[in-house]
Amino acid sequence: MPRASTKEQIVTAAVETLHMKGFNATSVEDITNAAQVPKGSFYNHFKSKEDLAVEALDRYWQNMQTSLGLLSDEKTPPVARLKRHFRQLGKVAREGGYRAGCMIGNMSTEMPEQSRPVRERLTVLLVAWSCAIESCIKEAQADGSIRRDIDARTVSGFLLNSWEGAVMRSKVDRGAESFTAFEDVVFTVLAL
Amino acid sequence: MPRASTKEQIVTAAVETLHMKGFNATSVEDITNAAQVPKGSFYNHFKSKEDLAVEALDRYWQNMQTSLGLLSDEKTPPVARLKRHFRQLGKVAREGGYRAGCMIGNMSTEMPEQSRPVRERLTVLLVAWSCAIESCIKEAQADGSIRRDIDARTVSGFLLNSWEGAVMRSKVDRGAESFTAFEDVVFTVLAL
Repeated sequence: MPRASTKEQIVTAAVETLHMKGFNATSVEDITNAAQVPKGSFYNHFKSKEDLAVEALDRYWQNMQTSLGLLSDEKTPPVARLKRHFRQLGKVAREGGYRAGCMIGNMSTEMPEQSRPVRERLTVLLVAWSCAIESCIKEAQADGSIRRDIDARTVSGFLLNSWEGAVMRSKVDRGAESFTAFEDVVFTVLAL
Repeated sequence: MPRASTKEQIVTAAVETLHMKGFNATSVEDITNAAQVPKGSFYNHFKSKEDLAVEALDRYWQNMQTSLGLLSDEKTPPVARLKRHFRQLGKVAREGGYRAGCMIGNMSTEMPEQSRPVRERLTVLLVAWSCAIESCIKEAQADGSIRRDIDARTVSGFLLNSWEGAVMRSKVDRGAESFTAFEDVVFTVLAL
């Protein structure tokens, strides 16, 4: 396998360090050290740490495609797809010892006031995620497995935000209690 | 009114700066500048920025007592108390232009891996908040205004985490859509 390009090494290292430590606790040098590239090479590829953060978010989103794909698996009933999606994300969190949380959620609390490009990218990703959830909700409302008295778009935004809140809490608890509560409450109260 | 002590000035300034900018984007000098005290005075009162962060969280919690008190206002039916509590928090967020979010939520995403004392204090505050919500839920379950098929403690944790997720989202959106979705969904699906 050919050696990854310097840029690729930096993006890969940035996803890991920015996800774990956040934007402001991570220096460009932390990232180039983790990437095992010279510090000076950074600015050949990125205008700024902020510029890299946007790219790292996109890469994080690509890395989420396995979990996101579960939402559109048409062989599975829509409520089961939703459960699998959130369980898969919970599994990833558990495997990481609940230490890193969700990079999209972390950046959503840390960055909106500090960086317009990051905030705009977060909006794009959150809307895309919410739309994927909404498709499942609509199918489930159509087949009668989820109650129809609440607008699918509203429920989807609520579910995504609630999930992010559960992830936030799992970092404090270092445990899955918030994920269990999420699943217990959501799938009980949404059921017809 | 006597002039506030240096320590008091530092704590007051820390609540504001740490809440708005987060822990890692705020230096001790940012805080002493905001407090209008000499930088050198900081270490007469605090061992570290981390030490101050714990104290700032306690002060933030004290500042939340108006919103928290709404949960125990026995003249009001329990579901109305819950609504008032979250609406009051949403009002505070709106007045701040959705820029700062909740300091407890912000620290919950930024700090658990970095600081054990902050993480432990977050646990204490989140549990206290959750218990206050739980009392309302239990009363509402007893008077028949909230469904009884989910454990009150589980619902309370879920509501608090979901609220924090809604606050996180309001920072990205710079708007109240996530608060509206929270209220719409929660009070529809929990109703008997």
